[in-house]
Amino acid sequence: MTSGNKAVVLLSGGLDSTTALAIAGSEGFACYALTVRYGQLHDCELEAAKRVASAQRVAEHRLIELELGPLAPSALTNRDIEVPKHRHLAEIAAEGNVPATYVPARNTILLSLALAWAETLGAYDLFIGVNVLDASGYPDCRPEFVRAFEELANLATHAGVNDDGNRIRVRAPLIEWTKAEIIRVGIKLGVDYAITHSCYAPEAALACGDCDACLLRKKGFTDANVPDPTRYF
Amino acid sequence: MTSGNKAVVLLSGGLDSTTALAIAGSEGFACYALTVRYGQLHDCELEAAKRVASAQRVAEHRLIELELGPLAPSALTNRDIEVPKHRHLAEIAAEGNVPATYVPARNTILLSLALAWAETLGAYDLFIGVNVLDASGYPDCRPEFVRAFEELANLATHAGVNDDGNRIRVRAPLIEWTKAEIIRVGIKLGVDYAITHSCYAPEAALACGDCDACLLRKKGFTDANVPDPTRYF
Repeated sequence: MTSGNKAVVLLSGGLDSTTALAIAGSEGFACYALTVRYGQLHDCELEAAKRVASAQRVAEHRLIELELGPLAPSALTNRDIEVPKHRHLAEIAAEGNVPATYVPARNTILLSLALAWAETLGAYDLFIGVNVLDASGYPDCRPEFVRAFEELANLATHAGVNDDGNRIRVRAPLIEWTKAEIIRVGIKLGVDYAITHSCYAPEAALACGDCDACLLRKKGFTDANVPDPTRYF
Repeated sequence: MTSGNKAVVLLSGGLDSTTALAIAGSEGFACYALTVRYGQLHDCELEAAKRVASAQRVAEHRLIELELGPLAPSALTNRDIEVPKHRHLAEIAAEGNVPATYVPARNTILLSLALAWAETLGAYDLFIGVNVLDASGYPDCRPEFVRAFEELANLATHAGVNDDGNRIRVRAPLIEWTKAEIIRVGIKLGVDYAITHSCYAPEAALACGDCDACLLRKKGFTDANVPDPTRYF
């Protein structure tokens, strides 16, 4: 039990980061949720992040603005790059196939911002809801990336020069779970997935049902044998 | 010679990053200069960055907005934290003494943004003008930090999943040079230091002469036996 210790949790408002936040909370951390408006076109996820932060009673929720689109174009940030739809799940998971929805260096940037806040707060635990099974094409969702960032974090900050034994931990509890396993854990922890948002190509904040994020989420609820609370258009 | 290859160069507009940019240019790189308005109070350095990018004829200069002050307070971003002045140089360089001007995780964030742009451009070289001698109190100016970021960068991006032999290099050419050595190299490469800005506490874009950055810069010109072109108030 780590009651009272602070953790910074990256919260997009999607299914995975919401579950990661619930896990951090269940471990007794005071959770500081960080959401970044990086230019994502599906910015209704930011409203979902607010709903989740409120439902899970975080210690604080911060929204940071960073216009990544011009530096790091992606189907998620640029209207002229198409979000892939109706793909086969095997294709989505195909090793070495980086999808159009990959945003260059996004998770490195998000973790760096989380690290800055953690150092300011005196927090040593960073939570990120990355998952390697569903998106093995994203290089920055792999265990070796998470380990390398943890190594870096301990050199980049006071932890690297102080001799007080405090080490930064980058926690990616979902990294090797299936979507169904993630959902089952979240349900046990009382997560209300109806208030989360995963879709890359929503209309009027409703999910499309056909993008990679929707397909994986749908299959997760089916495999977990849990009714899908998502509202599709 | 790497003529035609692209490099992303972090450019604050100060003496060090300006020299790093000149070095990248002298190696034949097409230079893409990246400047970040992260909430620094001494934002006249942004104007210096524009002057330098223009004088050194970079391929492109981008200015990114990211309000770090609330996440990562520092004497550089918050008016209620004082910029230290009149310190002894030995005190500035004292090991393990992180100064008030340290911005939590700043260089990690800056390199992450440079990495995003590099991946988009197809650049494999990132230049950063960090220096360990002058600021050994900054954990993110040390060689082990630079090496760890390079390691991370090669896992975080396409370079980590592609098998084409391309590796990202994080270049910190000044990291173990004295300020005088940096200035001598820059002068040889034709750098005009009069258009750069280093001061943490300027008034009307003129240098204070008394903050750590001014003291180190002044001493550098003295030690290099080069007239100091800085305008002090």
